Amino acid sequence: GLLYEGLAKTEVEAIALAESGKIEFSPCQDHAAVGPMAGIVTPRMPVWIIENETFGNQAYATLNEGLGKVLRYGAYSQEVLDRLRWMEQELAPILQKAIEKHGPVDMRSLIVQALQMGDEGHNRNRAGTSLVIRELAPYLVMLDESKEALARVLTFMHQNDHFFLNLTMPSAKSVLMPAEGIPGSTVITAQGRNGTEFGIQVAGLKGRWFTGPAGIVNGLYLPGFGSDDAAPDIGDSVITETSGIGGFAMAAAPAIVKFVGGTPEDALRFTREMYEITLAENREYKIPILDFRGTPTAIDVRKVIDKGILPVINTGIAHKKPGIGMVGAGLVKPPVNCYQDALKALAEAYTK
Amino acid sequence: GLLYEGLAKTEVEAIALAESGKIEFSPCQDHAAVGPMAGIVTPRMPVWIIENETFGNQAYATLNEGLGKVLRYGAYSQEVLDRLRWMEQELAPILQKAIEKHGPVDMRSLIVQALQMGDEGHNRNRAGTSLVIRELAPYLVMLDESKEALARVLTFMHQNDHFFLNLTMPSAKSVLMPAEGIPGSTVITAQGRNGTEFGIQVAGLKGRWFTGPAGIVNGLYLPGFGSDDAAPDIGDSVITETSGIGGFAMAAAPAIVKFVGGTPEDALRFTREMYEITLAENREYKIPILDFRGTPTAIDVRKVIDKGILPVINTGIAHKKPGIGMVGAGLVKPPVNCYQDALKALAEAYTK
Repeated sequence: GLLYEGLAKTEVEAIALAESGKIEFSPCQDHAAVGPMAGIVTPRMPVWIIENETFGNQAYATLNEGLGKVLRYGAYSQEVLDRLRWMEQELAPILQKAIEKHGPVDMRSLIVQALQMGDEGHNRNRAGTSLVIRELAPYLVMLDESKEALARVLTFMHQNDHFFLNLTMPSAKSVLMPAEGIPGSTVITAQGRNGTEFGIQVAGLKGRWFTGPAGIVNGLYLPGFGSDDAAPDIGDSVITETSGIGGFAMAAAPAIVKFVGGTPEDALRFTREMYEITLAENREYKIPILDFRGTPTAIDVRKVIDKGILPVINTGIAHKKPGIGMVGAGLVKPPVNCYQDALKALAEAYTK
Repeated sequence: GLLYEGLAKTEVEAIALAESGKIEFSPCQDHAAVGPMAGIVTPRMPVWIIENETFGNQAYATLNEGLGKVLRYGAYSQEVLDRLRWMEQELAPILQKAIEKHGPVDMRSLIVQALQMGDEGHNRNRAGTSLVIRELAPYLVMLDESKEALARVLTFMHQNDHFFLNLTMPSAKSVLMPAEGIPGSTVITAQGRNGTEFGIQVAGLKGRWFTGPAGIVNGLYLPGFGSDDAAPDIGDSVITETSGIGGFAMAAAPAIVKFVGGTPEDALRFTREMYEITLAENREYKIPILDFRGTPTAIDVRKVIDKGILPVINTGIAHKKPGIGMVGAGLVKPPVNCYQDALKALAEAYTK
């Protein structure tokens, strides 16, 4: 981040500056933003703006860089910085112009369709990415941009099936934010991890994090890597599960098990279990194979504790050493004490 | 067709010419071609060329016109003819140039992916269409064509989720053709319908059609139409089922039931039943929800008769009157006597 911003010239300088106390760090989710994995957002980075039209709030996320050696997985080589610079100077301005011609993109409609096309919106986003490309392509070609620039933009999206993730995440966040601060509500409004801790927020105690140790992901590794290389669970992408998609909608995306491990039967079971700890079934997001049942939505921290069922989370795995990047993907268990502590705090706050 | 070719100026002229005996009609499938519904292919129409690289044979299909009022569903108003002319003069040449830049498109890879994205390749092709768009878009923008023309091409594909059907059909045909003429083989190599008759061919009796009366489709109708409006079962698109996708892969596409009727459970059951009448499971085309089992492939006419299970077919429904177009989609049963007659003829031919 500091290298990309030009605030440091070398890794050593960047570390010294970061440790100097002169840089203020703050969690994305305290700023209506969400960032996958390391979740780095710096001032120059362009962001998606997702507006919840019903409640008027907005949520934000940077553009997805792709898989492998990327900043959010802890890589920061020249190749990574060059890509970020290109995203800032060419990709984002061109997409912005295309969206201005197109008008706002209806994320709800795209997520509805993607769930009928084998995506779950967290670690499988091939359909959503495809839908964004076909939606924007007719407008991209109408821009006064060079062919080469348009081809780079379309190729970048085509080669990155996670492109849509950075759209589902702020969509999920924008849906959850209006529930923050509802008196007495035990609904979980935020979940996130920073690689050290896992934290949750509940609607009845706006802005208060309940944290526990981040877990180790149980999953499939890229060739040459194994669980010894894995950093603990990290990133805001669990906001998708919090809103009722991602791991909660795995039944819609059985092919995901080739990426995160397990069997299609597991994917069905995970979604079915999540109905046990949620209050509602989504009216729009449907799972065809479950006879178009709505996705399990609105996690109730009381139910998590009563039933002893933790929210299911699928996630990418970063290398524990900086500079290497993504090493796999899998499933992770959140620490149970977050939910216990949140419920206890709710009881204390509302029984005075 | 005659109006589009300029061989007739009015409907009356076209009918007179068609009835005059001066026009030779011939089934697509006798020319390595496949056409959905009415299946009209005239000399001016551009076609997809699908090459089976293993066996060196080619199969052909026109480009898909979209749904509703289109020639293949029996409509031939000026709007329909104008669209066909545009497809010939702008769409096809531009796509051809893009594919020349791209190189041959790997249909097997696209169908593999589409089956993991909720398509079955006959009446649900949203994923396949999306994949073709994202594959070609980076090459389309590099062409020396006007922005407006490129936008029309991309918009046309985007607005027609059946665009991919006219690619899966000749792909299916190209796979089946090399099996034609294998001595003694009871595998079904072709199925088709012309709105009056349903016909099949078997590998051991190359080129010989066994026919029975075309059935009435049981399905869902567009608003304002019902089963009284339906033409009997029509078109070559059943070539998809014959090759092991389409209705045979409905378990991969549970959302299709909103288009053809039934429940997701039916979709699973249809695919499972088809394993009873097929000889193999496809090595490439997998169905995630069935634990990545290969699609049921190579229908054995002996098994159809022994088990009393007819091939499952999903299909569009044309209005029985010319000029109106598509009125719905559903499932149809083929006439059992085709299979009985083919088996009998095989027995006679190979027991002399």
